[in-house]
Amino acid sequence: MGRLPDLWGALSTAQLAIEVVATLSFALSGMVEAARKRLDAVGVCVVAGLTAFGGGTLRDVLLDRRPFFWVQHAGWVWALLGLAMVAMLFMRSRHLQPTERAMLWPDALGLGLYAASGTQIALQAQMPPLIAVLMGVVSASFGGVLRDIVCNQIPSAFSDHRPYAALAFAGGWTVVGVQTLGGSDEAALAVGALVASSLRLITLGLDWRVPAWRIDDDQRH
Amino acid sequence: MGRLPDLWGALSTAQLAIEVVATLSFALSGMVEAARKRLDAVGVCVVAGLTAFGGGTLRDVLLDRRPFFWVQHAGWVWALLGLAMVAMLFMRSRHLQPTERAMLWPDALGLGLYAASGTQIALQAQMPPLIAVLMGVVSASFGGVLRDIVCNQIPSAFSDHRPYAALAFAGGWTVVGVQTLGGSDEAALAVGALVASSLRLITLGLDWRVPAWRIDDDQRH
Amino acid sequence: MGRLPDLWGALSTAQLAIEVVATLSFALSGMVEAARKRLDAVGVCVVAGLTAFGGGTLRDVLLDRRPFFWVQHAGWVWALLGLAMVAMLFMRSRHLQPTERAMLWPDALGLGLYAASGTQIALQAQMPPLIAVLMGVVSASFGGVLRDIVCNQIPSAFSDHRPYAALAFAGGWTVVGVQTLGGSDEAALAVGALVASSLRLITLGLDWRVPAWRIDDDQRH
Repeated sequence: MGRLPDLWGALSTAQLAIEVVATLSFALSGMVEAARKRLDAVGVCVVAGLTAFGGGTLRDVLLDRRPFFWVQHAGWVWALLGLAMVAMLFMRSRHLQPTERAMLWPDALGLGLYAASGTQIALQAQMPPLIAVLMGVVSASFGGVLRDIVCNQIPSAFSDHRPYAALAFAGGWTVVGVQTLGGSDEAALAVGALVASSLRLITLGLDWRVPAWRIDDDQRH
Repeated sequence: MGRLPDLWGALSTAQLAIEVVATLSFALSGMVEAARKRLDAVGVCVVAGLTAFGGGTLRDVLLDRRPFFWVQHAGWVWALLGLAMVAMLFMRSRHLQPTERAMLWPDALGLGLYAASGTQIALQAQMPPLIAVLMGVVSASFGGVLRDIVCNQIPSAFSDHRPYAALAFAGGWTVVGVQTLGGSDEAALAVGALVASSLRLITLGLDWRVPAWRIDDDQRH
Repeated sequence: MGRLPDLWGALSTAQLAIEVVATLSFALSGMVEAARKRLDAVGVCVVAGLTAFGGGTLRDVLLDRRPFFWVQHAGWVWALLGLAMVAMLFMRSRHLQPTERAMLWPDALGLGLYAASGTQIALQAQMPPLIAVLMGVVSASFGGVLRDIVCNQIPSAFSDHRPYAALAFAGGWTVVGVQTLGGSDEAALAVGALVASSLRLITLGLDWRVPAWRIDDDQRH
């Protein structure tokens, strides 16, 4: 576990491609939500950035870890600004919009990759397993939580009754399990991400629901 | 003031019991609010955790203090997850809900204890008195503020016209006062917590109101 | 760039006056918004503080920079509490309210000064130019964003279609440009702040709008 000083540097080309797709997918989900809420173009860019980088940044603040990856690799920020420009022109001229269905796959990739890499980064920072898994959950879901808070709505990850944070939790424990069993960092990352991402697609396909927390309103008042 | 490297370790059994009750009370208030807002079971757990640990964590981030107490004592997180499970089963099967009245006492305990211990922790970190007291206010009230932000409503601590943050402020100054007069850390903690908690119960009992900030809407437009 | 250990200490009297006006202006905008949302007196003070100090504090957390300027100069917090008392009495007795028009000038000053000084502080912390400029944007605009989040509305900086964050962005790049061309820190601060502040007043005067992000609702559903 100790021989991995820079996780991002160690990623192979294939992993890098997945990561780019996942980050851009999160950014795109921020743009779509912000545009629906009638934010102006600047606000759309800010919300896109918050959604893409917010979860990982909050994780790094909690772990007291610097520099943030978007500081170390400022290219990500330029890529985001570029994406926003392209998306704006594209949406304006073509009347083409990403449908919710089209975004399910990259979003599921993002969920798995962020959960697994967030867990692994926290383990490298000597966090106990439960805390490391929670950091994976923060990485995967708090970008969307910040997006929804700025857009003035209850975070969809906690209220749409689809498994999301719970799957990040499962993916994180998978990473811990593989590393405990002696698997390499790369294997743990791959298996953990695969578990969370495929569970996301499976649960959506089967229309599984997270139970509501039943409460009797008439009894409380 | 300098001989107290670990406040939590120095707590006696009685103080530990109060602390457990206070933290669980905050967690429970998060659960009830999240359930009323129709969050799913995962969201209820997250909001419970934010409410219980959010204030102290924000204080530690501002003070650049690591590890967080829920990292050092991961048992707290397990306890929270366990509480959520029990609460969920209990609420489902018995149709028993914590009434607002039943939660006033533990909530008042939490207010006093968090305000006093937050102030003391900041004083140990060499903060000036005013800043230390503000850190006590953050510890006591920002868990609830985060709960209300995620639940998409104006924080009740700032809008229900019941004294809350102001009492944390008073409790914090009490801690500063006792320590300035030469009292021990333990005495300052106890007196500060007692002042804030009992003021909370008294002001609620007497139905005292925080004045509104009057503004003439017709004049502004 | 390296010879400026304490930016705030190096400010001349004129700059200090501008800074005081800008900070109080941000605090006042927080008070007015919180009062319109019917927060109680304590909530109004908290929101005033969040608005005035929130942007700079978030920047310092992201840069891992301590102490915060309101910790180092606790006088600012006392000044804020004093302002709140005066404002409360004044608004009650005279039925005089700051109109939106009256607040445009100090708000524009705050925008420029916070954007320029935030950028400069990040450059001193060895951030790359793009990141430094983003830190200027955070300093200038996230106080207002936090104010609006606590007041449970979409941040006006992102939704009122008036240029705000974009002007902080422009002011930040001006600072980078002047320093790259060999200008002194003082010159860069002054020119950057002037550019952002005057652009704010000009765009408001000319009624320029930030374009909306067009989206076809009927196509998405």
